[in-house]
Amino acid sequence: MEHTSKQYEAELRELKEKLLSMGSRIEELIKDAMQALVERDTDLAQKVIHGDHRVNRLEMEIDELCLKLLALRQPTAVDLRFITLGLKIVADLERVGDLAVNIAERAIELNQEAPLKPYIDLPKMAADVQEMLRKALDAFVKEDVAMAEAVLGADDQIDEVNHKVFEELVDYMARDKANIKRACRLMFVSRYLERIADHATNVAEMVIFMVQGRDVRHLHSVGP
Amino acid sequence: MEHTSKQYEAELRELKEKLLSMGSRIEELIKDAMQALVERDTDLAQKVIHGDHRVNRLEMEIDELCLKLLALRQPTAVDLRFITLGLKIVADLERVGDLAVNIAERAIELNQEAPLKPYIDLPKMAADVQEMLRKALDAFVKEDVAMAEAVLGADDQIDEVNHKVFEELVDYMARDKANIKRACRLMFVSRYLERIADHATNVAEMVIFMVQGRDVRHLHSVGP
Repeated sequence: MEHTSKQYEAELRELKEKLLSMGSRIEELIKDAMQALVERDTDLAQKVIHGDHRVNRLEMEIDELCLKLLALRQPTAVDLRFITLGLKIVADLERVGDLAVNIAERAIELNQEAPLKPYIDLPKMAADVQEMLRKALDAFVKEDVAMAEAVLGADDQIDEVNHKVFEELVDYMARDKANIKRACRLMFVSRYLERIADHATNVAEMVIFMVQGRDVRHLHSVGP
Repeated sequence: MEHTSKQYEAELRELKEKLLSMGSRIEELIKDAMQALVERDTDLAQKVIHGDHRVNRLEMEIDELCLKLLALRQPTAVDLRFITLGLKIVADLERVGDLAVNIAERAIELNQEAPLKPYIDLPKMAADVQEMLRKALDAFVKEDVAMAEAVLGADDQIDEVNHKVFEELVDYMARDKANIKRACRLMFVSRYLERIADHATNVAEMVIFMVQGRDVRHLHSVGP
């Protein structure tokens, strides 16, 4: 019995570690996708598109581990919530990986034309959403409500920057119609980053839900 | 024992019914959001933004039911997979509800300006993604692989229409800079619909995974 319980704890620890490792892998994907965009590095963008497979494999491993924990260990109420939220968080992370791939795809398209402008806001925005994501995952494995709440606070700021980028890019398009396609693609990158912030917010809300047992997931309305 | 097993089956049926009812509620949200866009009906758009709360409540009910089934019933391998996929599908559905709200938000912005053009492709695209979503959910509750595979086939077509809409809207922007903002907002609507198709595809892939026990989720690459 003692042995089984130790094994179970080791499996829960493995779940946390795998989630964190999927999280840092995805942070890297965002970082690389943004670097591919800013430095006009098509090879790196291709690497991001290819690298997503490793994330997908991690996702399946985590899913299987959760199923195993649910099937064999008959977890208690608290662990049950942790494991099922683990399943949901993995889905959020996978979607973030897809968004990093989308950024890389836009980067490849943009690299085929002359650069539109120095990307001042987008890399800053990307750094912010990466931090949100990291904090949200840390909050999950540490069950730290204060950290999760900090993530919720950061989301409004991202929405603001996204709005500013939108207006700026509309200006570029109005100035010269040769800018339109490129500006549209950059606008999509801005939206992808905003979506990543939304996923980080989701994770943070689930952490608060898990720890406090109250559901704050739907107090925050959907972003613009 | 007989009694318990009947109760368990009733709960599984309840889960299926709740998932379908969340699905049709979300289909309605998409339909209303598109109607609000096409008929320039800001009141209806507001209704969509408000109506999303009912979807959120359904989501929480389904989550709780899944937790209860996992905690009290110690489901078999097959049911375990069904219930945990139920948890994931609910997350997909909730995201689709958010996207319907996003469409309604863009509709409200668009209604404050003169109409840009008759929306020929977007309503057709919306009807197609609604059908994909309905089929994917039906495939889930009926565990019907052929139906799920039909959903996967439809996704490529959506990507194509989305690309066509993009080029068309870029043309509008190039023709007159007064069109730019409105065209950008319509471009976002087109992307939202494409994202909904991606979620339907996700659900369909999970159904095939569940039924066949093999994982096809990552054979299909991320869309453009």
